[in-house]
Amino acid sequence: MKKIESVNNQYIKDLYKLHEKKYRDISKKFLVEGEHLVIEAYKTGYLDTILISDSKYSFPGVECIYVTEEIIKKLAHTKTPQKIIGVCKYLNFKTSKTESKFLLLDDIQDPGNLGTLVRSSLGFNIDRIYLSKESVDIYNDKFLRSSGGAVFHTPIEVVDLYEKIIDLKNRGIEIFVTAVDGGVLLEDIKTNDNYAIILGNEGSGVKSELFALTTKNIYIKTNPKLESLNVAIAGSIILYYLNSKKS
Amino acid sequence: MKKIESVNNQYIKDLYKLHEKKYRDISKKFLVEGEHLVIEAYKTGYLDTILISDSKYSFPGVECIYVTEEIIKKLAHTKTPQKIIGVCKYLNFKTSKTESKFLLLDDIQDPGNLGTLVRSSLGFNIDRIYLSKESVDIYNDKFLRSSGGAVFHTPIEVVDLYEKIIDLKNRGIEIFVTAVDGGVLLEDIKTNDNYAIILGNEGSGVKSELFALTTKNIYIKTNPKLESLNVAIAGSIILYYLNSKKS
Repeated sequence: MKKIESVNNQYIKDLYKLHEKKYRDISKKFLVEGEHLVIEAYKTGYLDTILISDSKYSFPGVECIYVTEEIIKKLAHTKTPQKIIGVCKYLNFKTSKTESKFLLLDDIQDPGNLGTLVRSSLGFNIDRIYLSKESVDIYNDKFLRSSGGAVFHTPIEVVDLYEKIIDLKNRGIEIFVTAVDGGVLLEDIKTNDNYAIILGNEGSGVKSELFALTTKNIYIKTNPKLESLNVAIAGSIILYYLNSKKS
Repeated sequence: MKKIESVNNQYIKDLYKLHEKKYRDISKKFLVEGEHLVIEAYKTGYLDTILISDSKYSFPGVECIYVTEEIIKKLAHTKTPQKIIGVCKYLNFKTSKTESKFLLLDDIQDPGNLGTLVRSSLGFNIDRIYLSKESVDIYNDKFLRSSGGAVFHTPIEVVDLYEKIIDLKNRGIEIFVTAVDGGVLLEDIKTNDNYAIILGNEGSGVKSELFALTTKNIYIKTNPKLESLNVAIAGSIILYYLNSKKS
């Protein structure tokens, strides 16, 4: 097995640069840390190379490099990383013509919220997530960890949301949006299996030009003392509810 | 108005110590930052003193100290804080005999998850949250910010969960727990308005001695590709669902 023992090794230095989006975008590669994410990347074919400081790991068919714990620590974001880092290829999901359930995210900024929404989308059978260009980067380390590996199973794509909504409407997809006031109570929503749900930025909500394109406004009844639900919670409740009606 | 201009002022140094739990527990005070949290503390009677570096704020009946931006930055946890810090008294909620809906949290560690669950509890009419002693501190800054002020409206109490569950069962409260496998599908749960839901630690779930006391195991149907929902999501979906059935 190949071994690297210096944090100053050029390959390690190049991998370290993948902490920055601009270098990720050039090489089309990103890092994941910890056993769970590396296994999910391996199972889905995105794992390119692994670096380990513990020989208990084995991933047949993938280049494996034995490194020091110092190197793992340099490449990891967590304070006490597991002894495994994966170098992954950028995600690339094929489009299927049968896709009919979508989540549209308009400038979600918090990587934890995005990670949670990707998990919930996988859990509640969303076919594809469309992200606006100003959203948090999908190769952001905190996002990847909070997605819990769901990111490797859920088609996710950065698009111009305005154009995408027009396109979806032309294909007969209903466009739902959440609103704090007014709208149809979630439990009264009637829908077939063709819908897209737009969720907005944590502070400013859904942009008005996108809001104007929606076909239905969903309202989750809450105690008036609460100003608003967290966006990942509101979104996940809607995903749960619409999925439970179909099953 | 009283003014303090030095970060080395003894009062400011004492407030800075409130970043540590042991000093909070001695003085029974904690800090909140930002307009929104300070307003919620004010409305609910927990605001003791405010420190501002911008004279636009006014809170009649509460001592207000004008400070420098450097002092605000020293006391705040965020990188670009708003120009307002509140010194609050420890929370103290009266018990009401009509309480019948509870959320029990067994060693929740992530302050963001706890904050989100407090918001959802307020939104979906939980009467009281009981936290195990090993849970994240309810005066943790990140928790307070993610609760969005809901913490001032939702009775929350640190208890011995084992004893509390026995007590609740003796009062005729049903004890629900979530489980990844088995159990009753959420949509098939029948209950009256007397229930407690236990959610477990992010990594290890609900402790076995508590699990053994539960009366029903709730299951949220998800795509088998998903290992598990985030605990705050699973909990909030259950809170939403049980609340929507009653309303």
